[in-house]
Amino acid sequence: MGAGVRPRAAVVVTGSELLTGTISDRNGPWLSRELAALGFEVAHVQLVGDRPGDLTRALQLAAEDGCVLVVTSGGLGPTADDLTGAVVAEFAGVDLVLDEAMQARIAGILAGFAARTGFGGPALEAANRKQAMVPRGALALDPVGTAPGLVVSRPGGPLVVVLPGPPRELQGMWPAALAAAPVRELLAGVPAASARSLRYFGLPESEIAATLREIETQQDVSDVEITTCLRRSELEVDLRPLPGAEPVAAAVHAELAAKHARHLVSADGTSTDELLAAALRERGWTVATGESCTGGMLAARLVDLAGSSEYVAGGVVAYSNAAKTDLLGVPAELIAAHGAVSPEVARALADGARERFGADVGIGITGVAGPGGGTEAKPVGYVCFCVTTGDGQVIARDPRLPGSRADIRERATDAGMHLLLRAASPR
Amino acid sequence: MGAGVRPRAAVVVTGSELLTGTISDRNGPWLSRELAALGFEVAHVQLVGDRPGDLTRALQLAAEDGCVLVVTSGGLGPTADDLTGAVVAEFAGVDLVLDEAMQARIAGILAGFAARTGFGGPALEAANRKQAMVPRGALALDPVGTAPGLVVSRPGGPLVVVLPGPPRELQGMWPAALAAAPVRELLAGVPAASARSLRYFGLPESEIAATLREIETQQDVSDVEITTCLRRSELEVDLRPLPGAEPVAAAVHAELAAKHARHLVSADGTSTDELLAAALRERGWTVATGESCTGGMLAARLVDLAGSSEYVAGGVVAYSNAAKTDLLGVPAELIAAHGAVSPEVARALADGARERFGADVGIGITGVAGPGGGTEAKPVGYVCFCVTTGDGQVIARDPRLPGSRADIRERATDAGMHLLLRAASPR
Repeated sequence: MGAGVRPRAAVVVTGSELLTGTISDRNGPWLSRELAALGFEVAHVQLVGDRPGDLTRALQLAAEDGCVLVVTSGGLGPTADDLTGAVVAEFAGVDLVLDEAMQARIAGILAGFAARTGFGGPALEAANRKQAMVPRGALALDPVGTAPGLVVSRPGGPLVVVLPGPPRELQGMWPAALAAAPVRELLAGVPAASARSLRYFGLPESEIAATLREIETQQDVSDVEITTCLRRSELEVDLRPLPGAEPVAAAVHAELAAKHARHLVSADGTSTDELLAAALRERGWTVATGESCTGGMLAARLVDLAGSSEYVAGGVVAYSNAAKTDLLGVPAELIAAHGAVSPEVARALADGARERFGADVGIGITGVAGPGGGTEAKPVGYVCFCVTTGDGQVIARDPRLPGSRADIRERATDAGMHLLLRAASPR
Repeated sequence: MGAGVRPRAAVVVTGSELLTGTISDRNGPWLSRELAALGFEVAHVQLVGDRPGDLTRALQLAAEDGCVLVVTSGGLGPTADDLTGAVVAEFAGVDLVLDEAMQARIAGILAGFAARTGFGGPALEAANRKQAMVPRGALALDPVGTAPGLVVSRPGGPLVVVLPGPPRELQGMWPAALAAAPVRELLAGVPAASARSLRYFGLPESEIAATLREIETQQDVSDVEITTCLRRSELEVDLRPLPGAEPVAAAVHAELAAKHARHLVSADGTSTDELLAAALRERGWTVATGESCTGGMLAARLVDLAGSSEYVAGGVVAYSNAAKTDLLGVPAELIAAHGAVSPEVARALADGARERFGADVGIGITGVAGPGGGTEAKPVGYVCFCVTTGDGQVIARDPRLPGSRADIRERATDAGMHLLLRAASPR
């Protein structure tokens, strides 16, 4: 079809703690999204341990795969297992030199740290010197924590951007990395990205697969990368055209939106959280929660977005029966008659939350998260939801959700968001 | 020192949605932890897109790196971008054949799905056939969802275990994968792991680095892989000896525990959450929360562990001033005099939560999570904590926490857990 290609980039995340499962990497996904948004095709994300050989191989693989840019995270700290600077220097064929200006800058930062915490002395001084060693000819990026970043040009490519491991420092340093001259020059040659995405709720992946097969009988979509991704109860479909294939992506997007309109949540990448926030703001509504099995997860999710104090009144985690009665006015007789996990109690939790917080919309969630506590009538995964509003809406559901305790609680939180969105959406 | 070596394993996670940042991978960390616990050295985790060439290269890299086992996740679904089975077959040098018994089994699962959801017909039938194609000679593992797993032996190695992408299905299939004969045979030759770990709170990484340098002047620790990992406010140090180096690891472990005893949370890998649950159970205490800026995150974390209904009474998310007063009895005059974010209000939230829920220990958290709302006296990140108990303890803190809104809320939740642990720990 004559579509162009996208230059490739790679991400290399270092840290043995990532290979022992001690911690989950947050930098790979973040950097991937940034690089894709800049118009790169991300070839791979490699997580490697703090072993010089493995890090070198990862850099070599990126070079062999034709990547023009590699972004690394981690390995810039003060301990001996932090060796990214040295390995990247060797990869670029240069030696490490002490950057005295950087050493002075780090010393200033560390002095403040020592004064604040009482930790200081030789331990900090050794850390300072190690962190100020940079590959000859490289550009050092100012620390966000104590570790400087690096931009290292390798003859023949790729360009290597070295960032610190803590996500806050990495993300804080990213704008400076993009503004560095060698990176700016590289970006000038990258065609703009034009991704489109669709988000569905309650639609199985096989339905999208069938629709895509139908579309493929009518037109060639091979220049659009189409990925479907099931995220708990939501299905996200992303369309990423190669340069020149944007019209094909637009046509596929329109067809997928029309064909499954009933399950469509958004066709422009807006998240459920953002849609709900906008709908509540639009109506001038406040929301209150009465949660049992989700234990505060729904309230926490509502508060995730900045500015949520405008529309979140508050919530009660009513884990015990006494709390349901004392704090949300659920009649003890109602619990005795129907059980704590019942549509009746879910409604009473919603009404109680709405009334106690003086909110416009209330939601009650009560269920069996497991692993224990299930019965034949109310098995593990059985969750009752109810949303009630001051203008008389009542939306109730009582599905059986699959998975582990954590899965059930996450899915219940998701479902709660969608029920709230339904109540608050314009009709 | 004559220590042995650990056989290497690799993890390959497929899915273009992981490279566009649409979703964060959960399988890499989970599989890494499992493989490390079995005694493997995990060489790398590679995240690759749904492109046959990239997946093939990832498998080849694992083979070149001397890995005896590769575990893949994802790419077993019904859509055209799911192609792991075909790529692994080619890697092993065999063709794909239809496994009719497996096709019948999947058809049965899909019939139930169709009956439950109303989705069915040709879309499901095509999915069924695709998912029942297995590399010739491979062992198929029964589906947990609808996709079967595979164990594929390649002449000359490595052994490839192919698992589905959804974490629930992958984790559910893992025991069957370990029980498969080729995997069992391989595991028989893997020396047992004997990792040790230490968890600290409030200790900077540079202090551990200095202690390790001291230890290294006295003994050779090169046969122990030592990793330090800063996870929000906690620092975790892991020691993984090569076979034969266990005594060295034990000595280093003892020295690190003794040297920084004041900041030590646990020396046996127990998490803060588990320690707190055990301490509350030991005392027979119940806990209640009064949260503002954390918005339910602390309550949700307390409820994470199964069986938490024994010691979690409940909580109130009192985001507005009215909610603080109406639901937790915080005097309006107190808020007017000191501000909603103040040590005084934190204490009133703790007392109010304890009293309203009839709990033994209460915690109040109120702070400025940002990005807006900060003042010179109470900047973004300023968070007031108070824990009060029925037996008269009062533990108060008002630190300024660094980072973004999400960072501040996570760190505040962490700090809340540690303050509760302190109050509940035996004295």
